[in-house]
Parts: sequence; C-alpha cells; structure tokens
Amino acid sequence: MGKSTPLKVALLGCGVVGSQVARQLLEQADDLRARVGRPLDLVGIAVRRLNVERPGIDSALLTDDAIGLASRPDVDLVIELMGGIEPARTLILAAINAGSSVITANKALLAEDGPTIYSAAEEAGVDVYFEAAVAGAIPIVRPLRESLVGDEVTAVMGIVNGTTNFILDKMHTDGADFDDVLAEAQRLGYAESDPTADVEGFDAAAKAAILASLAFHSRVKLSEVSREGITGVKSADIQAAKEMGCVIKLLARCALSEDGTIAVGVHPTMVPVAHPLASIPGAYNAIFIESRNAGRLMFMGKGAGGSPTASAVLGDLVTAARNRVRGSRGPGESIYSGRAITAAGEVRSRYYASMTVHDEPGVLAQVATAFARHGVSLQAVRQESTGEQARLGVMTHLALHREVDGAIADLNSMPEVHPGISLMRVEGA
Amino acid sequence: MGKSTPLKVALLGCGVVGSQVARQLLEQADDLRARVGRPLDLVGIAVRRLNVERPGIDSALLTDDAIGLASRPDVDLVIELMGGIEPARTLILAAINAGSSVITANKALLAEDGPTIYSAAEEAGVDVYFEAAVAGAIPIVRPLRESLVGDEVTAVMGIVNGTTNFILDKMHTDGADFDDVLAEAQRLGYAESDPTADVEGFDAAAKAAILASLAFHSRVKLSEVSREGITGVKSADIQAAKEMGCVIKLLARCALSEDGTIAVGVHPTMVPVAHPLASIPGAYNAIFIESRNAGRLMFMGKGAGGSPTASAVLGDLVTAARNRVRGSRGPGESIYSGRAITAAGEVRSRYYASMTVHDEPGVLAQVATAFARHGVSLQAVRQESTGEQARLGVMTHLALHREVDGAIADLNSMPEVHPGISLMRVEGA
Repeated sequence: MGKSTPLKVALLGCGVVGSQVARQLLEQADDLRARVGRPLDLVGIAVRRLNVERPGIDSALLTDDAIGLASRPDVDLVIELMGGIEPARTLILAAINAGSSVITANKALLAEDGPTIYSAAEEAGVDVYFEAAVAGAIPIVRPLRESLVGDEVTAVMGIVNGTTNFILDKMHTDGADFDDVLAEAQRLGYAESDPTADVEGFDAAAKAAILASLAFHSRVKLSEVSREGITGVKSADIQAAKEMGCVIKLLARCALSEDGTIAVGVHPTMVPVAHPLASIPGAYNAIFIESRNAGRLMFMGKGAGGSPTASAVLGDLVTAARNRVRGSRGPGESIYSGRAITAAGEVRSRYYASMTVHDEPGVLAQVATAFARHGVSLQAVRQESTGEQARLGVMTHLALHREVDGAIADLNSMPEVHPGISLMRVEGA
Repeated sequence: MGKSTPLKVALLGCGVVGSQVARQLLEQADDLRARVGRPLDLVGIAVRRLNVERPGIDSALLTDDAIGLASRPDVDLVIELMGGIEPARTLILAAINAGSSVITANKALLAEDGPTIYSAAEEAGVDVYFEAAVAGAIPIVRPLRESLVGDEVTAVMGIVNGTTNFILDKMHTDGADFDDVLAEAQRLGYAESDPTADVEGFDAAAKAAILASLAFHSRVKLSEVSREGITGVKSADIQAAKEMGCVIKLLARCALSEDGTIAVGVHPTMVPVAHPLASIPGAYNAIFIESRNAGRLMFMGKGAGGSPTASAVLGDLVTAARNRVRGSRGPGESIYSGRAITAAGEVRSRYYASMTVHDEPGVLAQVATAFARHGVSLQAVRQESTGEQARLGVMTHLALHREVDGAIADLNSMPEVHPGISLMRVEGA
C-alpha cells in the first residue's frame, strides 16, 4: 500500500464521545495522517437512530446497520463507543473476525468478558486497545501494560469515578447529605438520572477489574470485585473522617496480598489529607501506583467527558493504525500469573468503626477488649460524650477483615453498644 | 525460534542503575520470561574498570571491551547506561548496525544528537526506547509518543531535576541560602560533588529538549533550550515568592507559541501554591501536560535513583523484547511538524520584577510608566518602605520577554532605581 492509501475507520456509536471522535478525525486529519504515515478515512458511523441532529457529522456516514459496518472486510480499524455488553460484544467480535483492529472504551464489557475479546484478537492477529475504558484521558492502561511491565506492581488504587468524587467532595465541603448532593449533581449534569452505575460503585468496580488484570497479569472479572457504593455514606461519617484528619473517597483498590492473591475492591475509604489522592478535586480522576522498583507514582487528569475520552480513543487509534502501517502488533493479554482473588475475610486494611454507646464506666474497656479478642490492635480512639450516650470512634491498625468482622459481631451483641455500627476502610498515609 | 530460545541482552555500564538492572534481570527472570514470551539472557556487561567489587553481579559477565560487546551480532537487545556523548554514541550506533534494539537512559546524547540515533534505528529496522531518559520512573515518554498522539499537546512543563527541587524546597522551608543548602545536599548525596549539570539547569534542559521534540513532533536540540539555573536564586527571591503566594521551582517548560513555534526553556519560576506542581516534594519529579482534548494531566513519581530508573529501563526492555518476539516495531521518531523555536524575545510569560528604589514621591508612577511604555500591563504591585529606600515588587500580566526586557532596561537607566533588578517568570494558576 502506498503512503496515500487511506486506512479505513468505522465508528460504532455516536454519543458524546463518538461525535467528538468523528469531529476530531476531520479537524486533525492532517496531523493524524502525518503521525500514522497514511490518511485515516472515516467510512461509516453506526447509530441507533438515523434521524437525530448531529452537528459537524456528515449524515451520509450514518448507518443503522451496525453489524454490516463492523464486518466490512475493507475496514482496518473499528472504534466501539456504544458501551454495554450487547450488541457491543457481537460487533467487536465481528470486527475482529473481519480482520480489523479494535479500539474500545467499553469497561463493562472488558470487565465482564475481556478474555473472549482478547483471545479472538490474538487468534486473528489484530490489536485491541482500550485506554479510554479506565480513567478517561489519563494514560494508565499503556503505562501498566508497557511502562511498568519490567517492574513488580504491588498496589494500584485510584479515584476512577468522577460522579461519586464530585458528590463526596460536596458532602465534605458543604456538610450536606447524600440525597441533596445527588439531586444537585443530577441538576448540573454530573450524575445520570439513573445514578446506580456510579453511586453503587459498578462503574468503578469494572475499572478496578481491568486495572487488577493489567497490574497483576491475571484475569479478574467484575463479579470478583468486592463492591460498596457511597449511598450509605452519612454526613456523620464525613464529620468523623474530618476529625481523624481524613476525607472520604470512593477508592478502587487492587493490591497483592501476602499470600500472592489479589485483593480488589471498591469502597468508600477514609484517606488522610496528606495523601496525594485526598486533594483530587471533583471532576478529576487519579491513579496511584506502588511498585517494587519505581516506588510511588501518581497520574491525574480528567476521567470523563467527550473531549478527554476522545483524546484517549484517538491515541489508541493512531497507535493501532501505526501498527497496521508497520505490520506490527501491540501487546496482547498477559495473564501468565493466574493469581486467585483474596477471600473477602482475608483482605488486610485499616478500619474505622464508629458507634454510639452508653456513657458509663467500663464500656470503652469492653469495646477495646472485643477488638483485642480478635487480634485487632487499635491505633486511635475518640470518645465524645453527649450526656447518657457517647460517640465512640475506633481506628485500627492493619487487620484482616474477618478479624474486624468478628469484633463488630461481638460489639453488636453487647447491650451497651447501640445497633448500627458504621465501619469504613482507612488508607495509609 | 522456539519459546525457550533466549533473547540475548548486553548491558553497557554498571553503575547505580546498571547494577540494579543486572540484579533485576536475575531476580525477576521468571516474570520477565513470562511477559516477553522468551527468556532474557544477560550475556555481557561492559565496564570501565574490571576490578571493582559489584555485589550480586556475576564477574564472568564483565568485559572492558564495550565495542566488542555492543557489536555482537548474536545480541538482540543492548542497554546503554553509561551516559555522556562518547563513547555512548559510537556504541549505540554499533549496536544498531549489528541489528540490536537499544534501550537507553542517555538524555544528554538524545538531546544533542538524537536524530542520528533514531535515523540509524529506522534504517536498521530496530527499536530505540528511552523512557528512563526523562523523569526516571515516571512514564512520560510513552504517554507522549503513544497515548497523546491523537491529541494536540499545547504545553508540557515539569519538575524534572530532583537535586534542584530538593535545594529550592530546603531554601523555601528553612529560609537558608543557596550555598548552604547545596553543601548540605552534597553531604546527603542528593547533589554531586560537581553540581554544575544540575544547578545550572543542563540536566533539566536536556530533558526539556526531549519532551519538546516528542510533544510537538519536531526536532529540538539542547542548544535551542533557553536555560537558567538556580545559582542566582536568593533567599530574598524565595521570600518575595512567599509573599506573592508562590514557591520557586526550576521548571522545564515547553509550549506552543501563538505563531506555531515552540518556546522551550528551563528557568527558576514562581509557581502559585495552588498549582499541582507547587507541592511536589524534594526527591520527586512531576510533569504537567495541557492538551486540546485531554485537558490537564499530571504525572508524579521518583525522578532518579537506581531502582526507579531501572524500572523504566526494564519496562522498555520488555517492550522491545516483545517486539522482537512478535516481529513488531515500536514507534519511530515523529518530526513531521518541523516547527521552529520561538525567539527568546517572543516568549510569552508572566514575570515578577523585584527592585530597590528611592522612597520618594513619584517613583512608583515612573516604574509603572516604564512597563506601560513597553506595552506590559501589571497585575500586582507590592511596595515596602525601609526608610530612605523601598523594596518594590511588580507582577506583570502575560507579556513578551522583549517587552519586559525593554521595561527593565528603562528602569536600569533611572537614577531612582538601584542596580540589580531581579526578574523571574511566573506560572499561571
């Protein structure tokens, strides 16, 4: 093929990100051609509804025959931006089988059934790139797959969902309740009308599964991610965090446990204000990595939105296109280590337990004894009397979740402790 | 080649980084083999002196015949960690001509004569990777070359020299003078006995040249980087920065000017405390990127040291080795845009000028008039009387360097203004 022969690009989906990608393909055409070595020619855009006004998009490119477009044998590169499991999976597999390399931002699909996609691509000898699936514009997939591939990553944690970060930020700053801030976020367009995927942690959990797979060279599925959203976070929890010098963030956390298994979860977590992740503002995402040789790394940037996500998609597109021009291939799935997932009870963390107790002599000793009985040592205790009752806050040292659960069960059986003990993870400084 | 046939690796240089790379090749051999798809076999280490104790290094691997090792036709991958221009350049070219892919951390060579290396590699069909040349363990070369290659980067700036960051940090915290802090840094091993490359900004300037070349798809040489070290930073400057809500950092800054040329320089710069770069502590490096679609990104991590640099080298090694196994190639030099360098006078920045004046009526007006005469508008003015004299600090809005220079020349000719006006760049919030 000569240098002027275009590479043909098909786009599946034309929402906020897709339309931005389509526009950039036109606006940056000269630069993209120079960077790839051949022109990129957008030959079709699959949409659900043809009769929608799409400013800046040539309507002659639109088609509602997604499978026809994805399967075109003359297409070189297929960009999937529809999201969801089906029909995205069927379309991606059709594209791969037709010999196209695939660029996707589909975290849900990759977290649920990535191996099917990666295996098909390996067999067909094509690339699958997915930088946009995690943390929008932040380059994190490529650094994990390539930059850190000579190192031993021990932990990856991050703020990977902007909606929940915005809500927690607001709750922290204004002292407002979850429901009120959610309503405001919906009004401002920062939260969907159905906010479940964000506030219940599903979106972050999908990203955690992808990050854990990359960091630890294993297959980690969405269903294996321990998940807790932010709907249960009360303004009293925010207040307690403040008193302990912390903020509450919804952290996706993937770490190697001592036995070599992978602990992976999404939980509201108290983060000390001095920790770099504590000061990440509302709309930003950030990923924090700990590795044996590199030490601590942090990446910060916009985690969502049309333009930032389009940046990641177009970076992958140029990379995959360059590979076509050079007859090269990008890295495939790396899953040789085959690590298991750490059992829920075996996850090691610091915890903060907050409870209301009768304000009478000996109660604090009983509470401390309950923790000690299960091998949990305490780092800090705060007690504040409110008359007949007292609020008690207990920060543990690193402990196994089952040990802390055991202590909480004991506390729940004590008549001096009121029902409704709140328990939250605490990140180290 | 079967899966068990090793790829042969040669190492040039066995200092702090080299010996760590050699040790990790042994310690992580199983993981590296699994990630590459074939074993990596270290076949030789070129050193200047054979008779030095090197713990953990098999002395049978050592040779003082560097050119012989680099030219071995059976070697697949050559890692150059000697630094400096020669003999590193000759050895790298010999390795490329012998068909090896090259991994190097040599910022000085790449900034001075990178194109010679890249062209030779392109002709020979081998890879050159150099993540470790800029900001140690922080993945920044790969994100610029690949992740952001579908975007339009408008500015890259960063703290890319740990020694100067440590010194400025200490000057800021302790109020100490440069000479005293430098002596302490040398005692602690944070500064070399000959600190010129660090404190005069040569090291940062080499990294700036590399970053500018990658970000703007042009060739930028070390000699084209405007450079100012930190030896002229006085504790009075630090104090003035504090009063303006800033800290002083040695910033490497590469930005697209309005006329499409590249402004690239290393200068002590006042950075507002709210800017993410302001809080980067001593030994860390950080890179801040602004781009059209991705918006603002920041990367933070350890910028030097044996283990962090080895992490970057080994990541490149695995990537280059995977390419060998797959018959693939990494990205080559991208210089299609051929942008010129912004002339020194045309660089646009905010500036802070600090001077001593006679404390008498009308002087402030004369100073303000001098700036206005050259088209420079002022954002803030601070005046502090010390009896017959006054300290005057003037913060400008964005202005061209030649405009500010013109104003300073006028001020220098005024009898009311004492000689020795201090001028410093100011980064936006």
